[in-house]
Amino acid sequence: MIGMDNDAKLRVMQERIIKSYAWQRDIIVPLSKEFECTADELEDLFFSIFDLGTLEALHGTFESAEDICMYQKLNADLRLCWFVGTLEVIDPEDAKKLKMKLIQEIKNGKSYEDALKEGRLEVFELLKKEVKY
Amino acid sequence: MIGMDNDAKLRVMQERIIKSYAWQRDIIVPLSKEFECTADELEDLFFSIFDLGTLEALHGTFESAEDICMYQKLNADLRLCWFVGTLEVIDPEDAKKLKMKLIQEIKNGKSYEDALKEGRLEVFELLKKEVKY
Repeated sequence: MIGMDNDAKLRVMQERIIKSYAWQRDIIVPLSKEFECTADELEDLFFSIFDLGTLEALHGTFESAEDICMYQKLNADLRLCWFVGTLEVIDPEDAKKLKMKLIQEIKNGKSYEDALKEGRLEVFELLKKEVKY
Repeated sequence: MIGMDNDAKLRVMQERIIKSYAWQRDIIVPLSKEFECTADELEDLFFSIFDLGTLEALHGTFESAEDICMYQKLNADLRLCWFVGTLEVIDPEDAKKLKMKLIQEIKNGKSYEDALKEGRLEVFELLKKEVKY
């Protein structure tokens, strides 16, 4: 990068990150679809919002945020805010264990839909357990 | 209900609630589909788990839990746990307003998918707003 000014050097370093395979696959491609914009538009937006340090850390934060999002989504789709929170007929620990197990299965390749289907049957079992007490 | 014993009377009162149109439409039909069981099985489960007072209150709690669930689901599907929580590039108040607006639209008849689609475009706008600062 000899002969380049600092702005140009910075841009090259930013581009190296953002054009990487993992970034494109996990962030740029899905997000530009959701935002109905081109990959270029989204990359420019990310260059403008984030400094180099944040860009470097971003992929890691994305993965952990995905887990948190998935946890919240399962909580909603399994109606656990109702069964655990409002009705208190499912033990919070049982609910947590179930969600963690499903997240692990999704990360191992199971589709969200299949995990949800399985999770719903397990919620039914947890409710039936309640009758025995 | 003259001539019935107390258990039988209770059962009639429980059935009146659970066989109501709103209960069947909002709770029994969707949940029995999710749990892959018959309506009868689910009704029996609910009779066993909940006393009469809880059954009477249940439909109301279901509606408010639906709102909370939808809020969590939108948070996840709009990746707000990332943009708001981790990256802090969207103002929490803006995110909250957006989610509340979408929930209202869903309650007014818009499909979750359409609301999500619209919400994603608004998240993109909120990100672009960030560049101006």
